[in-house]
Amino acid sequence: MNQQIGKGSLCFSEAPFIIGSASVVGTKEGEGPLAKEFDCIGGDDKFGQDTWEAAESSLQQEALTLALGKSGKNPEDMRYLFAGDLLGQLIASSFGLKTFEIPLFGLYGACSTCGEALALSSMVVAAGYADHVAAVTSSHFASAEKQFRFPLEYANQRPVSATWTVTGAGAFILAGAKHSGGQKPLARIAGITTGKIVDYGVKDSMNMGAVMAPAASELIAQNLEDFERQPSDYDRIITGDLGSVGQQILFDLLKKKGYDISSVHEDCGMLIFDSETQGTGSGGSGCGCAATTLSAHFLPKLASGEMKRILFVPTGALLSTVSFNEGQTIPGIAHGVVIESCH
Amino acid sequence: MNQQIGKGSLCFSEAPFIIGSASVVGTKEGEGPLAKEFDCIGGDDKFGQDTWEAAESSLQQEALTLALGKSGKNPEDMRYLFAGDLLGQLIASSFGLKTFEIPLFGLYGACSTCGEALALSSMVVAAGYADHVAAVTSSHFASAEKQFRFPLEYANQRPVSATWTVTGAGAFILAGAKHSGGQKPLARIAGITTGKIVDYGVKDSMNMGAVMAPAASELIAQNLEDFERQPSDYDRIITGDLGSVGQQILFDLLKKKGYDISSVHEDCGMLIFDSETQGTGSGGSGCGCAATTLSAHFLPKLASGEMKRILFVPTGALLSTVSFNEGQTIPGIAHGVVIESCH
Repeated sequence: MNQQIGKGSLCFSEAPFIIGSASVVGTKEGEGPLAKEFDCIGGDDKFGQDTWEAAESSLQQEALTLALGKSGKNPEDMRYLFAGDLLGQLIASSFGLKTFEIPLFGLYGACSTCGEALALSSMVVAAGYADHVAAVTSSHFASAEKQFRFPLEYANQRPVSATWTVTGAGAFILAGAKHSGGQKPLARIAGITTGKIVDYGVKDSMNMGAVMAPAASELIAQNLEDFERQPSDYDRIITGDLGSVGQQILFDLLKKKGYDISSVHEDCGMLIFDSETQGTGSGGSGCGCAATTLSAHFLPKLASGEMKRILFVPTGALLSTVSFNEGQTIPGIAHGVVIESCH
Repeated sequence: MNQQIGKGSLCFSEAPFIIGSASVVGTKEGEGPLAKEFDCIGGDDKFGQDTWEAAESSLQQEALTLALGKSGKNPEDMRYLFAGDLLGQLIASSFGLKTFEIPLFGLYGACSTCGEALALSSMVVAAGYADHVAAVTSSHFASAEKQFRFPLEYANQRPVSATWTVTGAGAFILAGAKHSGGQKPLARIAGITTGKIVDYGVKDSMNMGAVMAPAASELIAQNLEDFERQPSDYDRIITGDLGSVGQQILFDLLKKKGYDISSVHEDCGMLIFDSETQGTGSGGSGCGCAATTLSAHFLPKLASGEMKRILFVPTGALLSTVSFNEGQTIPGIAHGVVIESCH
């Protein structure tokens, strides 16, 4: 029996398997520290398209195609598709995924969407509603800059606290415990913790780390409490895109709650770029940051047994240019996914 | 045991109850045919706020507060909140719902979001993941015009095929079969059918009915096939916001598939306004259209036993101004929810 635990978590009795995943990234990510781990690095960031938005759609399409191929599955095998991106009305997902003809649940959780998609995917599979589902998320530096800040042509300067939106898409194929098809799964999703909106009143859209750290802190503390665990019960606690500025705030906030996660914490945004040499400020960000880093960097370590259990916590900043220009604060949200090795 | 049926549907063995709902609408809706049925009609469309977006957030906040009150529940009783709206990055939901502090799954399915939210809510409750969840969706005429077409100040003219975005929010409280708390539920969600993206290549953003009718047609046919039903097995098949133009296309498309639904079909967009006297073109539209009409008009008929079973099919048009201006087509999507009387 799947169990509600504590105030915000679920523990799955038959943990759904991640049977395949794929990461497709842009040129800058392909020059970063994780370059050798990605499945596919684009030759140029337009991915053969005329617009940045269509380029992002291509990223999603390629990531899902690759993940299906690596899992030995066809689109028809997927009962549901959980997908989202950062753009208004999710156009990267709608246009990238329409040709797959899979029943779709469109999601928006800003940069936490990868966690939201994996959470709902695993809930649906663990409940027996589907034998196989797919989860896909993406972001693109140029489409996000146009959406949230300034068109690239403005060549505006950015403070060092700003993060750099990752050009990339990650796709994950989940299967029920009885439906791995004899294949060795990459990992299993043992449980989830679902985040609330947390608003500390930050209004600086160039400091997303400060916006999202409080949501990450609440989520991680809730997870540890609900599962009755200490940080050391995880090989890694992995946030999506707090960057170096947000990381410090997260450490400080969790210390106040009695948790020191500094020895097990990693941030996908800090892993995907070398900020010193790549000029990416506080680190990488975007729905594609956590998704591609999980697929390329962490899932292989769980598959090999090098890591046994991780808490994956993509974080999102809930703003639009409209809310920002109207003087609103920027609330944050986080979604937590407990992923375990099958070794 | 909850069952996967056919290619796109689920049938719940212990159907979750809708134990409460609420509808809050604007002034124009309050002058329409359903005026007497809504819970709350705003005195002016700003709902005491400075901006249209904040007004829409207020709508969500009021709708959820009312629905909780009518159900005798507190925000703390809700394990999850499924919510969405039409605005970029779902700002109406984020700012409207943050004070409730309920773990949130943000959803985007354009005007189909009410169906998406009810579908996921019922899946989560039927699986035993939550005893109580809330589903909230909204739209606002002025914030939607600013988002998708022109600011109101332009006073642009509209073709008669255009629909009029409803100013309104609907909220629904769902409870597990064992958790109705002795209260008589309004209705139960017996099953769902999940839609794929359907793109017939329409590019006219002033004719959303034509964009969404193909998605509605595929969804309804899939539902009838999966559940092995005929249209007459439903007291009503209710689309969200096809309007009079979309309705005719839906009838034609379904006739080609061998189904005549004309005697049981109603469209929330055609019910909520009197287009002749209110100048609302083809009808009402928006996430708030289907949500408020279900809450105010159809749930009471299910609660009284006047209707036994309905298929509720909110429909969405997947576009943004960016995709539209870049010359993309407008794909559609629909989400189907089978709602039954408890009589």
